[in-house]
Amino acid sequence: MNQEALNNIPKAEVLVEALPYMRAFAGKYFVVKYGGQAMVSQELMESVIVDLVLLKYIGVKPVLVHGGGKEVSAVMEKMGKEPKFVNGLRVTDDETMEIVEMVLNGKINQKIVSLFNQQGGRAVGFSGRDAEILQARRVGSQPAGDVSGESVDLGRVGEIIQINPDLLQAVSDSGYIPVLSSIGSGLNGESLNINADHVAGELAVALKAEKLIVLSDVDGVYKEEEGKQEFISSIAKEEIRAMIMSGAISGGMIPKVESCLLALDGGVRRTHIIDGRVPHSLILEIFTDSGIGTMVKQ
Amino acid sequence: MNQEALNNIPKAEVLVEALPYMRAFAGKYFVVKYGGQAMVSQELMESVIVDLVLLKYIGVKPVLVHGGGKEVSAVMEKMGKEPKFVNGLRVTDDETMEIVEMVLNGKINQKIVSLFNQQGGRAVGFSGRDAEILQARRVGSQPAGDVSGESVDLGRVGEIIQINPDLLQAVSDSGYIPVLSSIGSGLNGESLNINADHVAGELAVALKAEKLIVLSDVDGVYKEEEGKQEFISSIAKEEIRAMIMSGAISGGMIPKVESCLLALDGGVRRTHIIDGRVPHSLILEIFTDSGIGTMVKQ
Amino acid sequence: MNQEALNNIPKAEVLVEALPYMRAFAGKYFVVKYGGQAMVSQELMESVIVDLVLLKYIGVKPVLVHGGGKEVSAVMEKMGKEPKFVNGLRVTDDETMEIVEMVLNGKINQKIVSLFNQQGGRAVGFSGRDAEILQARRVGSQPAGDVSGESVDLGRVGEIIQINPDLLQAVSDSGYIPVLSSIGSGLNGESLNINADHVAGELAVALKAEKLIVLSDVDGVYKEEEGKQEFISSIAKEEIRAMIMSGAISGGMIPKVESCLLALDGGVRRTHIIDGRVPHSLILEIFTDSGIGTMVKQ
Amino acid sequence: MNQEALNNIPKAEVLVEALPYMRAFAGKYFVVKYGGQAMVSQELMESVIVDLVLLKYIGVKPVLVHGGGKEVSAVMEKMGKEPKFVNGLRVTDDETMEIVEMVLNGKINQKIVSLFNQQGGRAVGFSGRDAEILQARRVGSQPAGDVSGESVDLGRVGEIIQINPDLLQAVSDSGYIPVLSSIGSGLNGESLNINADHVAGELAVALKAEKLIVLSDVDGVYKEEEGKQEFISSIAKEEIRAMIMSGAISGGMIPKVESCLLALDGGVRRTHIIDGRVPHSLILEIFTDSGIGTMVKQ
Amino acid sequence: MNQEALNNIPKAEVLVEALPYMRAFAGKYFVVKYGGQAMVSQELMESVIVDLVLLKYIGVKPVLVHGGGKEVSAVMEKMGKEPKFVNGLRVTDDETMEIVEMVLNGKINQKIVSLFNQQGGRAVGFSGRDAEILQARRVGSQPAGDVSGESVDLGRVGEIIQINPDLLQAVSDSGYIPVLSSIGSGLNGESLNINADHVAGELAVALKAEKLIVLSDVDGVYKEEEGKQEFISSIAKEEIRAMIMSGAISGGMIPKVESCLLALDGGVRRTHIIDGRVPHSLILEIFTDSGIGTMVKQ
Amino acid sequence: MNQEALNNIPKAEVLVEALPYMRAFAGKYFVVKYGGQAMVSQELMESVIVDLVLLKYIGVKPVLVHGGGKEVSAVMEKMGKEPKFVNGLRVTDDETMEIVEMVLNGKINQKIVSLFNQQGGRAVGFSGRDAEILQARRVGSQPAGDVSGESVDLGRVGEIIQINPDLLQAVSDSGYIPVLSSIGSGLNGESLNINADHVAGELAVALKAEKLIVLSDVDGVYKEEEGKQEFISSIAKEEIRAMIMSGAISGGMIPKVESCLLALDGGVRRTHIIDGRVPHSLILEIFTDSGIGTMVKQ
Repeated sequence: MNQEALNNIPKAEVLVEALPYMRAFAGKYFVVKYGGQAMVSQELMESVIVDLVLLKYIGVKPVLVHGGGKEVSAVMEKMGKEPKFVNGLRVTDDETMEIVEMVLNGKINQKIVSLFNQQGGRAVGFSGRDAEILQARRVGSQPAGDVSGESVDLGRVGEIIQINPDLLQAVSDSGYIPVLSSIGSGLNGESLNINADHVAGELAVALKAEKLIVLSDVDGVYKEEEGKQEFISSIAKEEIRAMIMSGAISGGMIPKVESCLLALDGGVRRTHIIDGRVPHSLILEIFTDSGIGTMVKQ
Repeated sequence: MNQEALNNIPKAEVLVEALPYMRAFAGKYFVVKYGGQAMVSQELMESVIVDLVLLKYIGVKPVLVHGGGKEVSAVMEKMGKEPKFVNGLRVTDDETMEIVEMVLNGKINQKIVSLFNQQGGRAVGFSGRDAEILQARRVGSQPAGDVSGESVDLGRVGEIIQINPDLLQAVSDSGYIPVLSSIGSGLNGESLNINADHVAGELAVALKAEKLIVLSDVDGVYKEEEGKQEFISSIAKEEIRAMIMSGAISGGMIPKVESCLLALDGGVRRTHIIDGRVPHSLILEIFTDSGIGTMVKQ
Repeated sequence: MNQEALNNIPKAEVLVEALPYMRAFAGKYFVVKYGGQAMVSQELMESVIVDLVLLKYIGVKPVLVHGGGKEVSAVMEKMGKEPKFVNGLRVTDDETMEIVEMVLNGKINQKIVSLFNQQGGRAVGFSGRDAEILQARRVGSQPAGDVSGESVDLGRVGEIIQINPDLLQAVSDSGYIPVLSSIGSGLNGESLNINADHVAGELAVALKAEKLIVLSDVDGVYKEEEGKQEFISSIAKEEIRAMIMSGAISGGMIPKVESCLLALDGGVRRTHIIDGRVPHSLILEIFTDSGIGTMVKQ
Repeated sequence: MNQEALNNIPKAEVLVEALPYMRAFAGKYFVVKYGGQAMVSQELMESVIVDLVLLKYIGVKPVLVHGGGKEVSAVMEKMGKEPKFVNGLRVTDDETMEIVEMVLNGKINQKIVSLFNQQGGRAVGFSGRDAEILQARRVGSQPAGDVSGESVDLGRVGEIIQINPDLLQAVSDSGYIPVLSSIGSGLNGESLNINADHVAGELAVALKAEKLIVLSDVDGVYKEEEGKQEFISSIAKEEIRAMIMSGAISGGMIPKVESCLLALDGGVRRTHIIDGRVPHSLILEIFTDSGIGTMVKQ
Repeated sequence: MNQEALNNIPKAEVLVEALPYMRAFAGKYFVVKYGGQAMVSQELMESVIVDLVLLKYIGVKPVLVHGGGKEVSAVMEKMGKEPKFVNGLRVTDDETMEIVEMVLNGKINQKIVSLFNQQGGRAVGFSGRDAEILQARRVGSQPAGDVSGESVDLGRVGEIIQINPDLLQAVSDSGYIPVLSSIGSGLNGESLNINADHVAGELAVALKAEKLIVLSDVDGVYKEEEGKQEFISSIAKEEIRAMIMSGAISGGMIPKVESCLLALDGGVRRTHIIDGRVPHSLILEIFTDSGIGTMVKQ
Repeated sequence: MNQEALNNIPKAEVLVEALPYMRAFAGKYFVVKYGGQAMVSQELMESVIVDLVLLKYIGVKPVLVHGGGKEVSAVMEKMGKEPKFVNGLRVTDDETMEIVEMVLNGKINQKIVSLFNQQGGRAVGFSGRDAEILQARRVGSQPAGDVSGESVDLGRVGEIIQINPDLLQAVSDSGYIPVLSSIGSGLNGESLNINADHVAGELAVALKAEKLIVLSDVDGVYKEEEGKQEFISSIAKEEIRAMIMSGAISGGMIPKVESCLLALDGGVRRTHIIDGRVPHSLILEIFTDSGIGTMVKQ
């Protein structure tokens, strides 16, 4: 047998392993939360985009959700406004909200769309106000968390009350990849700033998605086992909920896990927290038996 | 007969006049250019939006195109940048382009979408980069027009090379009203700033629209007849082209008329320049025999 | 602003008022009872026909029902037969029935069809025997109402036992306007003469019509209020039923109101008694908030 | 083998002979001209109707055309009017036309519809004015044919200028059997009296019918062969045209043959003149190799 | 009237009798068990095939089931193997099964397909292993029935556990006539030999067939009535079940009647045992009121 | 990053390489010639079947073609007949043809179908006589090739004159995998033995297949380059045709290459000769850039 053929043989096993997944996922929605650190390197962004375009090729219907906190603060500073947070939530006055909208819809969203275009995918940007995809209401006040004991009005920060997925479905069925910013429409039609992890979790439920995938800048969830940090490949939702309660999970991982729990509680079968810094991590998680990140399941 | 009935009789004639137009326009695209002065008053904006929602009700497929020069300048000044123009075209460096995108897509576009939502229409905002609706190329340099005799690179200013209307059609067929900003996708995927009147004219051709309607802040086109200004209700395209050549039309009316000529040359049958300041001017122009603005036809 | 434009402005309000009705009524059946005095003037007949053609244009599905008592008597006399009535019901022997059929199907029905053709509508005449649209049974005998105390066999007078609307629906869906005479098919296949107001009321139920409209030669229903006759624009069905009971409504208005009550009891939401002598009364009643006749509703 | 089985064997051959015809004719239009003497006996009328209902069962689409000269004269006499003919064409003044319409549409047409209903078929009566199925123009004057040398205006006698078969097709496709009277719509919308044989021939062309069948009260066409009358089972159109020219065919058979020639010249493949007095003559002609009447073919 | 016409008249009655059956059976499945003696004469085979092709013409969906015991024994002997039976069931070792498959699928099935092709039908042969149409399990051992009192393993003899009719339906809907051999797929994918009468009965249930028709080489079922053999034209299922119990039916007729009972118990309305030796016996049984064989009904 | 993730990274590249092929091939026909040595090992047969089932999963439409010379000879010998060949073509008398049909359709075809069933694919066996898929004519006589100079009648050996692919398409579209034996239907309906490589080549043309894949028991085509045998990964059709002419290709490879040339000349874009002995060779050839066998292209 010719040598090249011999070298190729191991490839066959990868494909034979992957093909049944491809069949199972054709025609299904995958909601992908993308943002923060996962967006730093241009090269890694392109790798994520390529993966999503390939998924679209074989019939998966990916829908991207993004926020964009860092860029908002940068533009605010340029415009001479100081960002202000209470309990990790941005205090969002009207002027700040205007900047949030301009940055998320006019800058980040369009940058992602443009990357898709360059990789041969046809992406379409949406804000959650388009066709009232994201209907929200104001969160209200939060305890300031300082000695004062006072509470602070968060302003234009919202939480989801209803999702209308029809537009995303129509556009997805027409062959496009929707890219949704985490801005919602309030009860009076005003724009509201919503946590993007929450949007992703709820949207996965509304679309009856096959999977929610949270792209992160860490490699997944660890647990302490006999003094050693053990990587968790797969975990049941109640187990990971207990880990949050017990404080075993903390920091930036909490909203990611909560996003998964929102989706799982709403009926999504499998959710994944994966490392956007690994090239093609999406493909690996989806099409290999062992995966690459942490899968949280029912 | 009861008095109320008697009072109502003249209404019947209006309706009998309008109904044949309704039949003729069902299922047809109307491209509406909306912007500038026509957007000043909140009340007039709502009147325009109401008209478009009503058109959608009876089966017309309106598509809105907007620019947004004034707002861009306002935000630039807030960020400490001075707007600069050559021959009426904005000199658009990369930083300016970023502001243009943020303002058009993140602010104006979303404001219009929100007005539709409040009037019971379901609007969806698009930039011309979404699904590469507007493919463009850089205009290049322009003579500075001053004593220097030098030319100025306009930077990120583009002109249309191709329109891909499929996405707008799919979304329109699904019952939504598309709202498109005049930002295009350059040859390297970069964003380019395009004249919104030109976008509207070309889009009407690409959609094989029944009508192009340019909403303005004047009541239409006048001509001098024996020393008096005569309002023009209806005029053939070659006649108005001659008026531009002869200087009989000038100033801000020129790009509006050019937009109409682009559409007419591409096969659109009728184009209208109407006064956005008249309440329900759209409805009047479309559904009455005499109309309210200037109709430019083949 | 040009003067013509200014004159046109009030028209806009009529249209803005009418458009939501147009949307609401598209694809819905309207059963229109047409006959008697409403058919006297050629000009008014044309005005009614024009209105129905316009309704068809914008997607409403009108179905016309007619009787034709006066013309029957005229032909009978020509043929040397004397019309005879008991309690307002025509005593219909076999020879009379033959004349009724010839006049209703061969003359009146075809005259209405022809008027539609001339106005650009495509109408199709039906008798209730076609495809057994109207299945009926004989009414039987009626007290003669004279001193004799005897009862009189009404002969070929029928009442509806079942309506088969499929043919009317198929023809209506194919773009035609059905015109139905009030002749039914008896249990042995014989033709029976049915009250046209009743046919209209029952047909509105069978077609799940949006509206029943009874065209009359009076302007609607009045009530006495402090010694004055007050026109009734809108009234609930139980209220008008009480008016019949109390004798506040009498004469030729009774079968019209009964027709409305039949429809309302069968689930039709709104019924209208309007004055066929007012030009375009149909359009006014349907597309203006105040209407022109008397609306009887649930 | 049991005796009953043995008796049944010859039936098999009839069916085996018929089945290929059934396959060939499914979904095809058959235009059947029915009238005159063929309508005399109630029993024979029922036999014809039964045959048509059976044809409909197996997917053939029969369309019936009828005139009704005899009945018109009878009603005219009842109304004290004397029928008048020039060259076999009825002189039709306006009053006569009114009677023609009443008799054809209101009496004969409905009688046929009723017979279908009783045999389990669902028939629908039409006049040629419905949806302008038959567009016609006045024939004009005819030489009186007497010594005077004058010409007589035939009045409301028409000839076909166009047939619009859409309505008949829509109704036929919905499972009904259309029954069409030979009354057309003139240029001013007025009713015109048309020869029913001509209507049948032209309608077969307009419907691209598989067959035209003329039901008559004779058993078909004969020719003289060596002094003996020989029955013609099958003949080519040019041969029978020659027979008309030479006078070998005369009298009432002429319009029947002309009807066939109209159809054949318009592309209909086969036409049949058959004897309505033979029970189930339609079935025999259509489903047996030898047939029962005279077939005129291309 | 011409003589030929007169001779044809009796044919009409056959057709008038048959047409309502044609209507009733269009689009329905008929399962036909064909085999054994019914296949001896080439001429009779062609007559059966012609009947099935004619049925297909008029919209019936015939599905043929065949076994082929005699031919298997013949080939076995050619290959030097002696056929062996226990209680009428073939003892089927692996080598025998290979021959059974080759003969049924490779010879008999293809012979039937070829006959259809020659008669203008488009037939497609299937084994019950194709797409696992017939899922079966081994019958196991049977008492040897001799003095030894031992039991004999029947080897590759199966009984049906499930039928998957989708493939037969898809092929039938595409215009082909399926021809199925009675070989099934065992639990380990191995081929099993199944009684063809049972296959036919169960398949009629799985296809919700209108009829099961068992073609035999006798003329149907007889009963003794006052010492005489009376042919049974029609009998209820419980009555014939009682006849089996009482021994009134015996021998080769038992599996045929059992096939009918299987179908009837599963909801098939009518089953027929008919004599394949009578030309066109299928057509006669189906399209005449009296039929030719024995109908067993609910 | 966790170790497992690191190990998985190379898999991603295989998938990223394969995904564009998957997109390109969805909905396309692949004709696979399978037979001879490639069928020897049970394990390798299963590997081929698994590959085809996976292809079906992702939307490819595989159609398998097989012959079966070796098995035919084995059965012939069992039945005491001696196989006889002229120029590599089997002399096929009627008795031999009967054995060919039994072995190909009743044994090999069903064995392949059964393997598919066990791997979760739903396969359906066909002979080329089913629905006359393969219409053929007799090849006639061949020179005996010995000293006698006489010619030998090959008997029931055929060559294709027409392929009717409709049945294979209908079955394929319904989700099944067709498996076709190389037996055709002669002009008189008799079965004919056709070369399976030719059938595969012609069928690829008739199905407008994306690819023809010839599974073989060698690793592809070699050429001599400076005294060394060089494996050919990809070659143009004219080049390989020249190699046949020059004798550079010989023996069993000739019919395989001819099969490819038949397909390429008929418009198939790419054909592949691959080694069925390499596990998953089909997957490797199709989804990797370098492939494993010899691709012959336009």
